[in-house]
Amino acid sequence: MTRATAGPEIERLIQLLARLPGLGPRSARRAALALVKKKELLLEPLADAMAAAVEHVGTCSVCGNIDTTDPCTVCTDPTRDGSVIVVVEDVSDLWALERAGAIRARYHVLGGTLNPLDGIGPDDLSIEPLVARCAAGGVAEVILAVNATVDGQTTAHVVTDRLSHLPVRVSRLAHGVPVGGELDYLDEGTLAAAIRARTPF
Amino acid sequence: MTRATAGPEIERLIQLLARLPGLGPRSARRAALALVKKKELLLEPLADAMAAAVEHVGTCSVCGNIDTTDPCTVCTDPTRDGSVIVVVEDVSDLWALERAGAIRARYHVLGGTLNPLDGIGPDDLSIEPLVARCAAGGVAEVILAVNATVDGQTTAHVVTDRLSHLPVRVSRLAHGVPVGGELDYLDEGTLAAAIRARTPF
Repeated sequence: MTRATAGPEIERLIQLLARLPGLGPRSARRAALALVKKKELLLEPLADAMAAAVEHVGTCSVCGNIDTTDPCTVCTDPTRDGSVIVVVEDVSDLWALERAGAIRARYHVLGGTLNPLDGIGPDDLSIEPLVARCAAGGVAEVILAVNATVDGQTTAHVVTDRLSHLPVRVSRLAHGVPVGGELDYLDEGTLAAAIRARTPF
Repeated sequence: MTRATAGPEIERLIQLLARLPGLGPRSARRAALALVKKKELLLEPLADAMAAAVEHVGTCSVCGNIDTTDPCTVCTDPTRDGSVIVVVEDVSDLWALERAGAIRARYHVLGGTLNPLDGIGPDDLSIEPLVARCAAGGVAEVILAVNATVDGQTTAHVVTDRLSHLPVRVSRLAHGVPVGGELDYLDEGTLAAAIRARTPF
């Protein structure tokens, strides 16, 4: 019954859209309907954009960023400080730091965090390539911009350990009150960290 | 700054995804990242599915359904009761009724509701083609399955008026308590309608 109203092409579109993060089966159906209703305005450009992405987009062999060139735009940008490598868990973290305009340095994407329960060990992450980049010279500082979770901090410790024989300074992001944050809504851990790391006013 | 991290292909993908219902700029970025990270598993099949949809999907010239054939699967299905036409506002309503398996009849998609404020008059909706279908004969009943909104009900009245010279029975969906609904959460209008239309137990 259900399958009879829409052709197999539309059903396949719905099923694939439902696998995108943020879209469930219901919203995928709404999205598919919007696409086929706005064929010229939305479906065709999106199909073209995806075909172009399939053609051109890949992972940077140096840092793990996703881009249309290899090495990526960040790795080849001559105006960036190549002596600083910001280590992130995921490409989305790299993009977030770039959106914030936080630092103009190079990056290194680990591709996840250590998680013994999920069977993710140090060899599953891009740790050795990071050590190789640092060992090749020219790197003065590695900033560990991993998430402030247990897995993230474990990963940070392992990465630090692997880099200990090299002449690089390893730092991590500051903990504290988020800008615009209200104390009343913050957890005890953050408040304690903010007190400990208090700065002269 | 923001544009420098991801190539123009990815930015274009994000912008187009953000125009889908249910996806904002942030979730579009997450979706685009998921797509390019799962290139073989997700991006390529979706690009292919969209290209196939561009190629094959269109509007049924009889009822206004969206399908890969014209006339659509519903209009050509010989097991359906061709003497009953269910009039809906939008293709999504047609799909919803089909998912419910509510009735095995034909449909007619109006393409919206009358809305003088938005400048949508009777000629902007597919009302005349409905009248023509009924006038061609073989139609005994028209079920107005429009939304229970002011615009929907206004549209229902106009459609009824246009059909008044033809020997077709015009009916509308019953109002009442939704199945599984709790009285405490229902509005007064629904409760009053449910009382008025009470049935012997």
